[in-house]
Amino acid sequence: MRGEPNRPAGHRRAGRRTKRVRAARAAPAYIKRQIPYYEFLDEEGLVMLEDQADWLMEEIGLEFRGDAEALRIWKEAGAEVRGTRVKLPRGMARELCRTIPSKFVQVARNPDRSVEIGGKSQVFACVYGPPFVRDLEGGRRYGTLQDLENLVKIAYQLPSIHHTGLVICEPCDVPVSKRHLDMLYLHMRYSDKPFLGAITEKSRAQDSVDMARVLFGEEFMENNCVIMGNVNTNSPLLVDKVVTEAAQVYCGSGQGLIAAPFILGGAMGPVTTAASISQALAEAMMVGAFTQLVRPGAPFILGNFLSSMSLKSGAPTFGMPEPVMSNFIIGQLARRLGIPLRSGGSLTASKLPDAQSAAESADSMMSTALGGAHFVLHAAGWLEGGLSTGYEKLVQDADRLGAYQVMLSGLPMDENALARSAYHEVEPSGHFLGSSHTMANYETAYYDAVLSDSESVEQWEERGAKDSARRAYERWNRLLKEHQSPPLDAAKDEALQAFMARRKSEIPDAWY
Amino acid sequence: MRGEPNRPAGHRRAGRRTKRVRAARAAPAYIKRQIPYYEFLDEEGLVMLEDQADWLMEEIGLEFRGDAEALRIWKEAGAEVRGTRVKLPRGMARELCRTIPSKFVQVARNPDRSVEIGGKSQVFACVYGPPFVRDLEGGRRYGTLQDLENLVKIAYQLPSIHHTGLVICEPCDVPVSKRHLDMLYLHMRYSDKPFLGAITEKSRAQDSVDMARVLFGEEFMENNCVIMGNVNTNSPLLVDKVVTEAAQVYCGSGQGLIAAPFILGGAMGPVTTAASISQALAEAMMVGAFTQLVRPGAPFILGNFLSSMSLKSGAPTFGMPEPVMSNFIIGQLARRLGIPLRSGGSLTASKLPDAQSAAESADSMMSTALGGAHFVLHAAGWLEGGLSTGYEKLVQDADRLGAYQVMLSGLPMDENALARSAYHEVEPSGHFLGSSHTMANYETAYYDAVLSDSESVEQWEERGAKDSARRAYERWNRLLKEHQSPPLDAAKDEALQAFMARRKSEIPDAWY
Repeated sequence: MRGEPNRPAGHRRAGRRTKRVRAARAAPAYIKRQIPYYEFLDEEGLVMLEDQADWLMEEIGLEFRGDAEALRIWKEAGAEVRGTRVKLPRGMARELCRTIPSKFVQVARNPDRSVEIGGKSQVFACVYGPPFVRDLEGGRRYGTLQDLENLVKIAYQLPSIHHTGLVICEPCDVPVSKRHLDMLYLHMRYSDKPFLGAITEKSRAQDSVDMARVLFGEEFMENNCVIMGNVNTNSPLLVDKVVTEAAQVYCGSGQGLIAAPFILGGAMGPVTTAASISQALAEAMMVGAFTQLVRPGAPFILGNFLSSMSLKSGAPTFGMPEPVMSNFIIGQLARRLGIPLRSGGSLTASKLPDAQSAAESADSMMSTALGGAHFVLHAAGWLEGGLSTGYEKLVQDADRLGAYQVMLSGLPMDENALARSAYHEVEPSGHFLGSSHTMANYETAYYDAVLSDSESVEQWEERGAKDSARRAYERWNRLLKEHQSPPLDAAKDEALQAFMARRKSEIPDAWY
Repeated sequence: MRGEPNRPAGHRRAGRRTKRVRAARAAPAYIKRQIPYYEFLDEEGLVMLEDQADWLMEEIGLEFRGDAEALRIWKEAGAEVRGTRVKLPRGMARELCRTIPSKFVQVARNPDRSVEIGGKSQVFACVYGPPFVRDLEGGRRYGTLQDLENLVKIAYQLPSIHHTGLVICEPCDVPVSKRHLDMLYLHMRYSDKPFLGAITEKSRAQDSVDMARVLFGEEFMENNCVIMGNVNTNSPLLVDKVVTEAAQVYCGSGQGLIAAPFILGGAMGPVTTAASISQALAEAMMVGAFTQLVRPGAPFILGNFLSSMSLKSGAPTFGMPEPVMSNFIIGQLARRLGIPLRSGGSLTASKLPDAQSAAESADSMMSTALGGAHFVLHAAGWLEGGLSTGYEKLVQDADRLGAYQVMLSGLPMDENALARSAYHEVEPSGHFLGSSHTMANYETAYYDAVLSDSESVEQWEERGAKDSARRAYERWNRLLKEHQSPPLDAAKDEALQAFMARRKSEIPDAWY
């Protein structure tokens, strides 16, 4: 049963927690959406896009390369397989996707932080993958293991980040062949929010699942999703073994898989947005169908990553109106399929946490929120088209995520909200500040954005005339300093470290 | 007839125009919305809010102060008038509002720039009212007539700004009693987009209408709206003579009025958003009803300006989720009334054009766009809670307005958009960049944001590692330098200057 969060075997509530940790725990673990979806495209348009996806799977087909087992699985299921090209009769992918759970719980090691993915739930996760980091004083540089530790510690304390993901930055000072072990350990040690596992090689995916087994217990994982892999198809229409092997490792052990076509329109897909949406749907649906051949009922998230392109340079652009529209539309398509959706994020091409960064990220993220993405990777920290993780950007984005969370929770519409009594207390041309209604509702009426400065210009100048980036710099430094690790069972910690030591001794160093 | 733009009497197309002016003229004069509205609140909630507005007008009533004629008009119409308190029987305001045109055209002196307000149209106008200006090199200072001239010239050249408003900044170096004349002249001289008139005193409103008569011709104005006044009620529930006199001057001569309650929740209205929305609806509807008593069929725009409040300081906050939700809801309420709506804008409490400014402005403006506001004052240039106009902010916002314009125009959904032929040309794992479909669609496929930098970090560093504010600074300076005044009939120009000279000799200097 995946309907309700369970407690991992052996989990004990810690007796003593600091006030700060208690406060953080009080924040909701994920968003329970109370507002309508924005239905952007009409029925006719949606049917056209679905028909196009079917046409792609039936007439053009997808390449599945480098994994003979994947081709065998497709053949056995009745697909038309010629060489590495796999074509599915119309409707087959949709039929196979029926066993994908419409919602499921990813259990966190602190069960109060377990997240529901799908249905009316929305989960915000950190940026994933940048090799570089940037902060206001340190500038731009390759990410290190210390950076990742810092970023995990900061993300852990941000209540609007529900999921820490995995590669908040690449720890480039650790061999590629071994860094997945260190990354996972940081998420397990310095946070108790849910996280992702590695996917770059089959053995690394397996190590991830094995480390999760140490943390959660083997038996518990048989019936609960505690870890997921996040893979990209090689658009256009190519699925390599990274994807199919990750599906076999994660879904094979009852864990989750996210498959997100990454389509830069005009390069990995046609330059028109409608075509890119259909292509993304076809690619992700076909991976979804594959996961259900591996293990019917395995948690799967239909991913989507569409970007537009600069006419000046051909470089990808973010936060532009075309991906904004696709965020709305892909939400509609996923709901029609009844499958959890990953899309959007706080995306930008800007190198700095400046106005470009914030405007692009806001439009990208607002449409992501309204469009109903269930799992939002890159919800905080993304800079420079995903090449760089911004320390300041991480806390800036998290502050805005809190605002989307309030919006998604809807507007109170009751007697207190209508406040008729207040109009008997305050005459026309009067002032509501001291009224009993204001006093009673003051503290909960409005979202309190930590990083927004709303003081007068005089007050703001007195305090140093700091811009948003400077205030964000101060905030992440404070959070980092104040971080307190959530309690981790000492025996488990030892077992995790022993596992890592063994695997590191077995794996040769490799830097690619 | 207000259905289609007319040509002002005596308007002649200039024979010779520069290439730049032709290019600017090719941009659409306003947005014809092609996408659905976002219906945020359900029927039950909407009825609750309407019922509350009716209750306010019937049980509490509004104060109408300082204008005996307004009280006489209300009495004659059958309202319950006791002292300065005016109460309307349930349904009376709604009934009076029926003669408000659901859409109308504000004619610009260049008829190609006339805007339709209402229906499926959306019009973006400049920030209105700040006494201060700020730019990157000059810092923050009182606005001057030179600043206003600069800002009009810049706004004139920004294709996504459809309407220049009036007080892009206050020209604080000109006596208050005379500056309306100079302000209007700048909009008439350096731009040919539509604009607003003054409202602060009845004589200034009259001067505005009179100057419009010089520009457009008296007869033409009898049947066409060419100027509008924008007034605020004195929330809560107080309407002063600035409003009722402006209604008499503008609507009395068949011109338009915008009435926007300015409600800082917890101060000028209850601290709960639902109550503030209802209060704003009641206040604006009652002014709308009043305009129709002055002249049935006069163009009226139902305004709305709701802000939230900082829990730390009690200062107004902008771009927060509560006003975002109210942007959606007030759109629904206005559509149910069938009245054109003003709401939202690119609002922020930030002092600088930084990430705070951009994030708050984007969330505010995206919800404004999706919510369906027909006339958006403050769509560009607003900083510091409306106290300061940002030169950089003006061009940054305009760049994002272009993106909303693309979104509001919807997604192409035809054979070309689906691009099936491209998949016969490009194999799976291939590349679409050189395909004939990409070549054919490349230039129109994506929004080209002038100010967004999407280059690689190396290219960006080579070009000086400029942030968004620095690039915006360079852009507005370039626009200002390149400004060419649209042609203005020499006789009209002389007549306008003669009118101003006469009025300036009649009006004593006053600085308040």
